Amino acid sequence: MHTTLLTVDDIRQLVRLVGIQTLMRSLIAALQEAFIAYDEQITVIPPRSGFSYEEPYSGLIEWMPALRRGGSVTLKMVGYHPHNPHQHELPTIVSSIGVYDVSTGLLRGMMDGTFLTALRTGAVSAIASRYLARSSSQVVGIVGAGAQAVTQLHALSTVFEVRQVNVYDLDPSVSESFLRRIAFLDIPVTVFGEAQLPNLVATADILCTATSTPVGSPPVIPDVGTNEWLHINAIGSDFPGKTEIPYRLLRRAFVVPDFPEQALREGECQQLAPDAIGPALHIVMKNADAYADMRDQLTVFDSTGWALADAVAARFLLDLAHEHGVGREVNIQHVPVDPHNPYDFSI
Amino acid sequence: MHTTLLTVDDIRQLVRLVGIQTLMRSLIAALQEAFIAYDEQITVIPPRSGFSYEEPYSGLIEWMPALRRGGSVTLKMVGYHPHNPHQHELPTIVSSIGVYDVSTGLLRGMMDGTFLTALRTGAVSAIASRYLARSSSQVVGIVGAGAQAVTQLHALSTVFEVRQVNVYDLDPSVSESFLRRIAFLDIPVTVFGEAQLPNLVATADILCTATSTPVGSPPVIPDVGTNEWLHINAIGSDFPGKTEIPYRLLRRAFVVPDFPEQALREGECQQLAPDAIGPALHIVMKNADAYADMRDQLTVFDSTGWALADAVAARFLLDLAHEHGVGREVNIQHVPVDPHNPYDFSI
Repeated sequence: MHTTLLTVDDIRQLVRLVGIQTLMRSLIAALQEAFIAYDEQITVIPPRSGFSYEEPYSGLIEWMPALRRGGSVTLKMVGYHPHNPHQHELPTIVSSIGVYDVSTGLLRGMMDGTFLTALRTGAVSAIASRYLARSSSQVVGIVGAGAQAVTQLHALSTVFEVRQVNVYDLDPSVSESFLRRIAFLDIPVTVFGEAQLPNLVATADILCTATSTPVGSPPVIPDVGTNEWLHINAIGSDFPGKTEIPYRLLRRAFVVPDFPEQALREGECQQLAPDAIGPALHIVMKNADAYADMRDQLTVFDSTGWALADAVAARFLLDLAHEHGVGREVNIQHVPVDPHNPYDFSI
Repeated sequence: MHTTLLTVDDIRQLVRLVGIQTLMRSLIAALQEAFIAYDEQITVIPPRSGFSYEEPYSGLIEWMPALRRGGSVTLKMVGYHPHNPHQHELPTIVSSIGVYDVSTGLLRGMMDGTFLTALRTGAVSAIASRYLARSSSQVVGIVGAGAQAVTQLHALSTVFEVRQVNVYDLDPSVSESFLRRIAFLDIPVTVFGEAQLPNLVATADILCTATSTPVGSPPVIPDVGTNEWLHINAIGSDFPGKTEIPYRLLRRAFVVPDFPEQALREGECQQLAPDAIGPALHIVMKNADAYADMRDQLTVFDSTGWALADAVAARFLLDLAHEHGVGREVNIQHVPVDPHNPYDFSI
């Protein structure tokens, strides 16, 4: 048996065994370590590519490959279909991840990527916030209260003493359900209406934008006065033409992308000239002292989704599954007894 | 349950139920139909990309995506590791295929691609030979007698009355085992030594080269006089710098690539200027009468592996599995009851 298959049931079992708090904290630690150790001679990450289309619904299927030399290739497939919740009662983002051994090319692990994508996106924002927000941050603003907002707040709550959350969503029912979805965190949440959005932005220590705003739409937050130390995690811009943050606010901020090459094409950085963009997150982390002053200034983490985070998260989950004896071994790839005979099983 | 998983056992069962002869003939028919119907407005196939490396062994892992608008995205992952047979008792090529629904992004099928790659590579060569070789072809020469040679000969034998096969491999034990591996075809096979290679080339009606020759090596066949109607299926060149056919022979021939853009980068077409290359196979098929004379001339099919063939083969196998009730339904992707709650299963 060559492939460890982690189904949704397996991941559910694993989450129950380990606990969601421990899972998030451990993943943050694994990502922190991997980002600081990141060496582009060892880890090769091309910008993702994919197919976008308008029929039958507007959507996008893309692949995010990563190579760790001498180790494995991870490939995450991601579907982004904004009509899914309304049309199909499915999440906007669905995903799966394969892990391949570079010694042989064999598929070693196959697992859900939907849960892991939400988890790692939250975890990476928490890490970015650790380096770019005041450690005393207490008030978190959230714009766009869908699936990603849950893990954003969860991850932030493991790094900061969050005392107040203010949330806004275009769809009031989504804001309302957010209260239930993050009830396990036991943090006071206030739902804001559209008219109060300027106030939400103005009072935040940390702000997360995680919307499905369409390509070419206006910014999802107004350009108002903010706390001078505001840190923004801009999660939703991940597609050419799709951005969330007002240009003028972005120009005033220290902007740190997860993956500059990709952020210039798909992130908030689309709005900026390359020389107006700060260093990648892993550079800030490697030189934390040099960038410590930024925690008192306006900063934006431009999160487009870095395949390194997926590779780390997939490896983390596979290791955890092996440790707890969760998952099943399957033969997805045909390995004939005689490697020269593709028909050995069939004649 | 969203994903049909076809393990090696499932495919074995399917092959036994259907029979390898019927399977090959049906796949050839499905590919023939899809190639003639190919419309680049509907089917989008970017050239494949991937990672190549030298540690721990020289190898390559690549992905071959294809989009059928309004239908599905197919992504084949392929490992090419020439040391596999000697170092790991594994085939050189191992592969898996995922099929994704463009309505929702969901993974609909996950299956072995190793067997299917060998099968479809043979099937496509048989189709190319139908359009570029004499229908009376009887003598097949094979250079490189590994896994691909089995399906090359099998597929050709379903289209031509093959009366004699002459085979050469660098490794005499591979030639010898080839006799056993294709015994089910009941065709006389003669093993040729290196000194007889010119004779093998000179007497063939159809010649298949399917070697793992290293990048930058000399041609795998000598440039000798051939039957004027010789058709060559050049299978092995699928990597920048890797070619099998002598330049002068190629210059004399009508060269038909499976996928011109990719063949110029990875196939025999690397040796040619773009204007020295003939039309893609599907063009020849759509205009069969116009190219009928080519069957009496020297022709080369430059097979680098076209993702359309994988998409058709994967769909073919999935349909066959559903028809026969083979395969198992699994939930690889997490689809929460509440699409806005990634934690719905875990809290």
